[in-house]
Amino acid sequence: MNHAKQHYDGLTYPKVVVVGGGFAGLEVVRGLANKPFKVLLLDKQNHHCFQPLLYQVATASLGADSIAHPFRRTIGPLPNVAFRMAEVQEVLPERRVVRTNVGEFEYDILVLALGSTTNFFGNQQLAEVAMQLKSISQALDIRSDFLQEFERAMVLREENDLRRCLNFVIVGAGPTGVELAGALAEIRRTVLKREYREMDSELMRIVLIDSNDRVLKNFSEKSSANALRYLQELGVEVQLNTRVAGGDPDHITLADGTVLETNTVIWAAGVKGVLVPGLDKAVNERAHRYTVDRTNQLQGYPGVYALGDIALMEEGDAWPKGHPQVATVAIQQGRHLVANLLRSSNGQAARPFTYLDKGSMAVIGRGRAVVEMGGRSYGGVFAWLLWMLVHVVQLVGFRNRIMVLVNWAWKYLSWKNTIRLIIRPYVREGTAVSRPAALEGEAAPVPHQA
Amino acid sequence: MNHAKQHYDGLTYPKVVVVGGGFAGLEVVRGLANKPFKVLLLDKQNHHCFQPLLYQVATASLGADSIAHPFRRTIGPLPNVAFRMAEVQEVLPERRVVRTNVGEFEYDILVLALGSTTNFFGNQQLAEVAMQLKSISQALDIRSDFLQEFERAMVLREENDLRRCLNFVIVGAGPTGVELAGALAEIRRTVLKREYREMDSELMRIVLIDSNDRVLKNFSEKSSANALRYLQELGVEVQLNTRVAGGDPDHITLADGTVLETNTVIWAAGVKGVLVPGLDKAVNERAHRYTVDRTNQLQGYPGVYALGDIALMEEGDAWPKGHPQVATVAIQQGRHLVANLLRSSNGQAARPFTYLDKGSMAVIGRGRAVVEMGGRSYGGVFAWLLWMLVHVVQLVGFRNRIMVLVNWAWKYLSWKNTIRLIIRPYVREGTAVSRPAALEGEAAPVPHQA
Repeated sequence: MNHAKQHYDGLTYPKVVVVGGGFAGLEVVRGLANKPFKVLLLDKQNHHCFQPLLYQVATASLGADSIAHPFRRTIGPLPNVAFRMAEVQEVLPERRVVRTNVGEFEYDILVLALGSTTNFFGNQQLAEVAMQLKSISQALDIRSDFLQEFERAMVLREENDLRRCLNFVIVGAGPTGVELAGALAEIRRTVLKREYREMDSELMRIVLIDSNDRVLKNFSEKSSANALRYLQELGVEVQLNTRVAGGDPDHITLADGTVLETNTVIWAAGVKGVLVPGLDKAVNERAHRYTVDRTNQLQGYPGVYALGDIALMEEGDAWPKGHPQVATVAIQQGRHLVANLLRSSNGQAARPFTYLDKGSMAVIGRGRAVVEMGGRSYGGVFAWLLWMLVHVVQLVGFRNRIMVLVNWAWKYLSWKNTIRLIIRPYVREGTAVSRPAALEGEAAPVPHQA
Repeated sequence: MNHAKQHYDGLTYPKVVVVGGGFAGLEVVRGLANKPFKVLLLDKQNHHCFQPLLYQVATASLGADSIAHPFRRTIGPLPNVAFRMAEVQEVLPERRVVRTNVGEFEYDILVLALGSTTNFFGNQQLAEVAMQLKSISQALDIRSDFLQEFERAMVLREENDLRRCLNFVIVGAGPTGVELAGALAEIRRTVLKREYREMDSELMRIVLIDSNDRVLKNFSEKSSANALRYLQELGVEVQLNTRVAGGDPDHITLADGTVLETNTVIWAAGVKGVLVPGLDKAVNERAHRYTVDRTNQLQGYPGVYALGDIALMEEGDAWPKGHPQVATVAIQQGRHLVANLLRSSNGQAARPFTYLDKGSMAVIGRGRAVVEMGGRSYGGVFAWLLWMLVHVVQLVGFRNRIMVLVNWAWKYLSWKNTIRLIIRPYVREGTAVSRPAALEGEAAPVPHQA
């Protein structure tokens, strides 16, 4: 890493271009603040998104603004950091340039931290019908969607349409799938029961599908068992050892041929790294990530680093197949890279990265969570409180912490998901609305008006 | 109003269908709660929107969820009220039926409270390029838009493009226009200055255009003068006695031929009532409102009432041309109709409506507002605090009041508009982005990286 060194000899600061302001990228930007580097952050969004709480935006517990933080709020005061809202289209390593939709930017050091996107494993059919939960707009779409299904259900006459309308299928029982399923199940118990009185809330089904033999497969057996019990207590139908073969707007088909009629499929079954054209030598096709050494430097591209979800680092026997694609890895790799860059600017050698697994947690509902820490697993209310604490502390921005606390206090005292705003038109294909038949003639009677 | 009476003789309750859950409609629904009526609220949104604070959502001071309240939160607990999310397409008075996109609903009493929409006075050109501020999605569009213009400005090279990008034109100096202009001017002073340091914040222009000879023409001369002074103190360019002739995506043309280059035109110059086909006899074409008697009953349609913005009621000499299209009229007419319906159900005669003008207020910025009350006009900090108090009190929902208070406290202590989320793609025509030229080659240099 003597590229930085050279610049010091010339008394100029190295240009560090960071692509992506997720957990890893933001860590790097903050770490290099007021240090002898010229930092430029590029992101196609203007805000950092706290992804672990996206599902709460999708389920009307938090407003989007509570988990998002404008990059300029962080970067504004920093003299040596700039931000540009831009989508990176290509890296030209020989010229040390990144090409974006708003022009080219030079770099001495390139830090790629683009995170991951939903992986449909090539199933185009599903990619078209299923919803995802990787961005704020997707979360808002899911929120609008399930609320619109509820409202649709109130005017449908055919019980079959009604059941399809209220059948929510979530594929993938990792933390995201489990947390979504749990939150929807709580909405059935509270919102649907109380505020859609004319409808039988039991008509709503939440089906959680996974191809593994247990939920939260990266957690301990004990935590998986707890999570499964919590989900079942809340009335989630968990279908394990089950694969989804295909989907249409009004149903999905399982590998064994079973058909589930539904308007709403949420795909949380896998992610893949967001790669950029121009660095092919380092791409690991199978994992869809960049092969990096222990300093996160791309194989064959000096001065180019990949962090977090897109980085595939073999860490000896501990992580022979690379690290899990979670926030803690991204944060630790970001901090480690900063340390190495500062060491190199002092002429010291870089140190290899070692992942410190702080454990993992998932929340299923009020008073129901599982936590893995220090080789032990905890459940119940303690885990739930711990989960809330950890997430509030990690949020970027003091205001966001306040907002989340106020919202949670409100929600858990009032048993209400209040942020139930439908802010976009009902556009999804195949739903009752797009079928003229469902729009004509007499609506389902309003019982108390009959 | 003996339609209600008849039902009592038959021991059945009259069916009241309320179309529109704005200030007037919500007042009726709440007033008839637990009363001998079967109430059905129809609205194309699932939430009530507190329109007076929409401009704060548009200018990143409040989140959408702070000023919106799901109808079912209000209606859920009410035994005699139902809600359906539906768009009314036609009224069939002879059959006493409203036809909607989800079917037909019968009524004995029909209450139309659809509010108003932006009035472009037939200028199709402007209708296509200008943005509006009548709904939450429009507010979010304005927010995304001005933030995207800011980000665009950071990568433009031509000063001309830059100036056009940062030129914000607001047409109409009523409360909405004035409040928007003031808020944008404050953003220039705070956000733009602090967090876009590489850019000269003075390049941003806020032009407020009105065809009248003063701002807030419905306020007293004194308030207009105060408002004008506040706007000028904040650096808003106020152009009075000025008409807009036409617009294109990259400029607007004034009546005198002057061309203002801009990507962003916000139209706040007028509204018109939202009328429904089927009640033609009562339509006043000129005012685009329904002619109603002093009980808000439509001329020629017994049992059909119109409230608020869509109602044109001649109130003797006080309001010979009808009432202003503001919240207080809507709320008072809603309450009055409820009283009359209850009176009629007791066999008493209906009473004529009289508008009690409680005054009006507009806020221009921190510590700058104008208030008209009891024939007197107030300004400055007192008016500002009064404005905040009144608006928080009027908000629907305890949580919303808390959220707004927390947000305002945060904003006014930190001098920051935090909710700066761009949540939709940059799609507007004619802006730099849609011009390939602006996307190619070298971006404007990042000064501190040069």
